[in-house]
Amino acid sequence: MNADDRFDLEAKSLGYNFDGEIKIGGNYVPLVRDGKHIYLSGQIPRVEDTVVVTGAAGAEASLAQAQLAAKVCAMRALALLKRAVGSLENVKSILRVTVYVQSSPGFTQQSEVADAVSEVLFKVLGPAGAHTRTSVGVLQLPKNATVEVDLIATVE
Amino acid sequence: MNADDRFDLEAKSLGYNFDGEIKIGGNYVPLVRDGKHIYLSGQIPRVEDTVVVTGAAGAEASLAQAQLAAKVCAMRALALLKRAVGSLENVKSILRVTVYVQSSPGFTQQSEVADAVSEVLFKVLGPAGAHTRTSVGVLQLPKNATVEVDLIATVE
Amino acid sequence: MNADDRFDLEAKSLGYNFDGEIKIGGNYVPLVRDGKHIYLSGQIPRVEDTVVVTGAAGAEASLAQAQLAAKVCAMRALALLKRAVGSLENVKSILRVTVYVQSSPGFTQQSEVADAVSEVLFKVLGPAGAHTRTSVGVLQLPKNATVEVDLIATVE
Repeated sequence: MNADDRFDLEAKSLGYNFDGEIKIGGNYVPLVRDGKHIYLSGQIPRVEDTVVVTGAAGAEASLAQAQLAAKVCAMRALALLKRAVGSLENVKSILRVTVYVQSSPGFTQQSEVADAVSEVLFKVLGPAGAHTRTSVGVLQLPKNATVEVDLIATVE
Repeated sequence: MNADDRFDLEAKSLGYNFDGEIKIGGNYVPLVRDGKHIYLSGQIPRVEDTVVVTGAAGAEASLAQAQLAAKVCAMRALALLKRAVGSLENVKSILRVTVYVQSSPGFTQQSEVADAVSEVLFKVLGPAGAHTRTSVGVLQLPKNATVEVDLIATVE
Repeated sequence: MNADDRFDLEAKSLGYNFDGEIKIGGNYVPLVRDGKHIYLSGQIPRVEDTVVVTGAAGAEASLAQAQLAAKVCAMRALALLKRAVGSLENVKSILRVTVYVQSSPGFTQQSEVADAVSEVLFKVLGPAGAHTRTSVGVLQLPKNATVEVDLIATVE
């Protein structure tokens, strides 16, 4: 089973389809390739036209819902990478992941939310999914999304 | 009309002059060049000694004011790039733009604010201005600025 | 006195020991090396099992305490770099530092907090410590930390 199969399996397990257009919210591009590096724009947990988890973690969104949001962001990122390089087998490493969590004042489990991103990356990419990570709690995110994730990957 | 002319036109249209010293707020450098990459420090909408838009978007600052702040940040970034490489014609691509918007709790139009950054980059740089983007809503920014923008560019 | 000696001196001056395990809070790696670049995961001011400064700057944490937190984050980053490349003399430049400051609503001295990071980098690394910087005020950070710092370095 290769990385693309594992991606399909994870999509099925989440119950979402990432084959449609990956919409972005403004006048920019979803990714830029620079030699062997790909920079990905910030991904919110949007599936087609719907942001599937909204509101602040710790208030409107539970930890589990924020983690679901995080997984959807990660899957969108992987879907974009897959389209860019043909197969996720061509992703060689993930240099940096930044996880922004819309947080209520008392919510300090940003790392636990970000763990859901890391889990998807490891599950789908295997050892190539190892990454550095920064997770922070922000006041708001576009479209009231609970989580936003961006990353830099190296590809072949 | 080249990128430098378009920069001057945009500065005129905004009514601000970016020929003076680009002040930064601490003990660091405005940019670091690493081969063909330039990393720029976070830019707030300061023109000479004045931060021209302050306060939270959605409260003290309207969407339109936040967009003005975003444009001034983008112009500062371009002004710094121009000084570093002589002409904006030497900017080949923008890999990543991160837009931090000081937000009131109910303000979810961070993408719309960041669109103003994207607009300036496209207007001045043309196709070289295409970029990946992450926009988030933060609680505060240095000097109570409404917007802060950093970026990574590739240059010739 | 080389960079490693200066690191030891700064650790002594802060009164903390950075020789133990540098714990990270989740399922990812502390750093990824990509050619001559090293990406470091976000560092909170944890020494062994204790986050030494918590709470929002301007409320539970004073400016001075936030600056101490910032220094501990910077020292953790340097400790990780040192382990990765043997000696801090092999660090050639710091491309980007991002400083996230957990802030109370009225706290606008994020740059002053980040100055403490910059001070440590310059003090230990000398001219190689010059860096671009972005500092923002966020609502929360993992483990209620007052400051989180990530960076990208170039090494030999």
